[in-house]
Amino acid sequence: MSLTHFDKAGRAHMVDVSDKDDTDRIAVAVCHVRMLSETLSLIESGTAEKGDVLGIARLAGIMGAKKTAELIPLCHPLPITRVTVDLAPDAGLPGVRIEATVKTTGKTGVEMEALTAASTAALTIYDMCKAVDRGMEVGGLHVALKDGGKSGRYEAGA
Amino acid sequence: MSLTHFDKAGRAHMVDVSDKDDTDRIAVAVCHVRMLSETLSLIESGTAEKGDVLGIARLAGIMGAKKTAELIPLCHPLPITRVTVDLAPDAGLPGVRIEATVKTTGKTGVEMEALTAASTAALTIYDMCKAVDRGMEVGGLHVALKDGGKSGRYEAGA
Amino acid sequence: MSLTHFDKAGRAHMVDVSDKDDTDRIAVAVCHVRMLSETLSLIESGTAEKGDVLGIARLAGIMGAKKTAELIPLCHPLPITRVTVDLAPDAGLPGVRIEATVKTTGKTGVEMEALTAASTAALTIYDMCKAVDRGMEVGGLHVALKDGGKSGRYEAGA
Amino acid sequence: MSLTHFDKAGRAHMVDVSDKDDTDRIAVAVCHVRMLSETLSLIESGTAEKGDVLGIARLAGIMGAKKTAELIPLCHPLPITRVTVDLAPDAGLPGVRIEATVKTTGKTGVEMEALTAASTAALTIYDMCKAVDRGMEVGGLHVALKDGGKSGRYEAGA
Amino acid sequence: MSLTHFDKAGRAHMVDVSDKDDTDRIAVAVCHVRMLSETLSLIESGTAEKGDVLGIARLAGIMGAKKTAELIPLCHPLPITRVTVDLAPDAGLPGVRIEATVKTTGKTGVEMEALTAASTAALTIYDMCKAVDRGMEVGGLHVALKDGGKSGRYEAGA
Amino acid sequence: MSLTHFDKAGRAHMVDVSDKDDTDRIAVAVCHVRMLSETLSLIESGTAEKGDVLGIARLAGIMGAKKTAELIPLCHPLPITRVTVDLAPDAGLPGVRIEATVKTTGKTGVEMEALTAASTAALTIYDMCKAVDRGMEVGGLHVALKDGGKSGRYEAGA
Repeated sequence: MSLTHFDKAGRAHMVDVSDKDDTDRIAVAVCHVRMLSETLSLIESGTAEKGDVLGIARLAGIMGAKKTAELIPLCHPLPITRVTVDLAPDAGLPGVRIEATVKTTGKTGVEMEALTAASTAALTIYDMCKAVDRGMEVGGLHVALKDGGKSGRYEAGA
Repeated sequence: MSLTHFDKAGRAHMVDVSDKDDTDRIAVAVCHVRMLSETLSLIESGTAEKGDVLGIARLAGIMGAKKTAELIPLCHPLPITRVTVDLAPDAGLPGVRIEATVKTTGKTGVEMEALTAASTAALTIYDMCKAVDRGMEVGGLHVALKDGGKSGRYEAGA
Repeated sequence: MSLTHFDKAGRAHMVDVSDKDDTDRIAVAVCHVRMLSETLSLIESGTAEKGDVLGIARLAGIMGAKKTAELIPLCHPLPITRVTVDLAPDAGLPGVRIEATVKTTGKTGVEMEALTAASTAALTIYDMCKAVDRGMEVGGLHVALKDGGKSGRYEAGA
Repeated sequence: MSLTHFDKAGRAHMVDVSDKDDTDRIAVAVCHVRMLSETLSLIESGTAEKGDVLGIARLAGIMGAKKTAELIPLCHPLPITRVTVDLAPDAGLPGVRIEATVKTTGKTGVEMEALTAASTAALTIYDMCKAVDRGMEVGGLHVALKDGGKSGRYEAGA
Repeated sequence: MSLTHFDKAGRAHMVDVSDKDDTDRIAVAVCHVRMLSETLSLIESGTAEKGDVLGIARLAGIMGAKKTAELIPLCHPLPITRVTVDLAPDAGLPGVRIEATVKTTGKTGVEMEALTAASTAALTIYDMCKAVDRGMEVGGLHVALKDGGKSGRYEAGA
Repeated sequence: MSLTHFDKAGRAHMVDVSDKDDTDRIAVAVCHVRMLSETLSLIESGTAEKGDVLGIARLAGIMGAKKTAELIPLCHPLPITRVTVDLAPDAGLPGVRIEATVKTTGKTGVEMEALTAASTAALTIYDMCKAVDRGMEVGGLHVALKDGGKSGRYEAGA
């Protein structure tokens, strides 16, 4: 077992994907932001008239997906064809659940783009709410689904 | 209680910090990446000769801190004066624990920079190891310490 | 009369501001997007439940201000301390009026940042609505106010 | 009539273009910068020996086209295959007329890239000349031509 | 003989490559950093336990390749499919020899990407070692190999 | 003797400059591009009417200086206050000699910014002329002068 981002001498490289086919690929990543229930109430009321925290986090997540190849050193640049970021308040956490979906037609998968989108949306929620709740925590960030490409379909927990 | 990133009509803005003093500020953020113990072994052996996953994640985290104001919509650009990212294997997780420290002399805090550094380092570990372990999960991302500025010292759990 | 962005031989340079003082500076830029009245109605209804065009344009404008020194070749990078972007529907145009305000404490003015914020917000409105109205036009982009620094206060039309 | 950048619940997303064909696409955007006739004279004389304002604005426009997907939140990243930016002094304005042409072979149109190129060139003229003429105004920014893709050919005023 | 980056009137443009085929392309660029032999010894010992200068320069080179179209004004953005950066200590220089290889499947060559990767790796070595050796010099930066596309194979010195 | 970019355990970090004073700093870097004399003639004639290679390289160098902290992993972001890039044809090389000067008022030196400006200008010349001369070579890139800050004045060859 070895890591593909290194050559045989252990030196990092951007893996050669020249010979891979351009196929339709999709990835879904999820995470959550745990917070005080007062903070969640503020977010929920805010959507209407006090300031749209979730709308801004959604946009930051979408734009973050486009920055993935700049942030992750050995990531290939990819022509993303779709990004959605869903944010759902969850009183049970209490907090917000985030799900990011990214698609491309390309030579490598888009799980890093989906993870970056979800993570950036979560960080943006922290930034928007930190003045009232410094103890927020981001957790559960993982790939829920990945499909397309030679390695086939992957579903977390499946 | 209201969110400072919105004006009275609920419209987002970048908060006015013109009148704040330039003071020394520090923030520490932490998170972890949980993985298969086989993956952790690979990372630990790799540091020596098979490829330095933690060294690359450290660098990605440091560079990520410099991108914070591009990623987080309402963040102020800041002249960062120090960034360190520590990554420690933890067999008990099993996985890697990440701690990012950022300093500046400026008008606003650097907790978003520290969170972005820690998060980017974690995502880079995922990228480097995903070929052998798709089920990794990033969690526990929070601000451990923040000091400097008018709001005083904050320590998580203190 | 000569242009400060060129030396005596006509070669472009980034002007030396080393000896200038760090002073509080502000600039306001305005523009408008003219569109079909049906498009404006769509935007106005959308703010409530169908999609927040103005909220997204506002955020794009704020983030655009931070990219000014990357876009404008001879602009100095500046630590922006405040950005607001106001967007007001105007049935008389018909269309949307945009006003961007930027502040800094620095060695040069921020009128380019204000113009870039207003312009980016306008382009984002075009992008969001182009599927229903290709004939929209951006106009009237100018500096409405500039203050701070040695050259004193400027008000358009004053 | 609805806006494609929002889903049925009014949430912003980057539209799915996975199933669209890669076709040849072109867009042309135009605008102008109105200024004092003295400023225009300075620009025109400058091309020869005093500093090439139009050459710098042209380059800024070309580079700006490549930044479109970073500036406009819901824009897809596209592999641009051609950019030209023409700048023509017009004594009648008085000022400079700008026309930007962008081509790609891709799944979505390039009108945003053309608009961004024209707009960035105009802002750069403002920056270069603002020391002698603060009252300049950018106007008339619109899509003059768009072709390729399923929606067919569009010509402004046609 | 004329330069393709200008039109007939001498105005810069991004060359139209719309009609070119997507073909497999490769380019190799090389350079070296000359330094004091004590500096080279420090780098060589460092790889083991004192700090991995070459590992960091390698990563900077790989990430630099992805920034080529942002740095070089008339470069087309390209979907890079492979980057490797090799760094070999050479006691005879004394210094470090750098070789960067870039591949793509696209409409234009990748020699600028290879040159940018090699150059960025060299600058990073300078940055890492400048505290002990300010007199380092980067030289010999050229394209060693280019293949793919209509203009055929090129080998330096062949 | 040790490298400041690593801590005692050999881990890379961005050095803490929080306690350094903001002082005026300057750095000058030089390099050259060697080419066929026919290529140099083309560049020299071009300045007048066939396309301004040196003007474009100058602008690319100035803009490149602003990207230094993005390219060089452990570089601190700095508020540059001046950049000039001079390009002089030299028939003796034959080729072009490049000199970049950068100033700041800050906590660290600007030699990396000057080197990046010179290097980016050189690469841009390569890009503009590569269609007629693939064998060009960039060499002699070094810091010619550095002043300001605690370590005092440095002049190459002095």
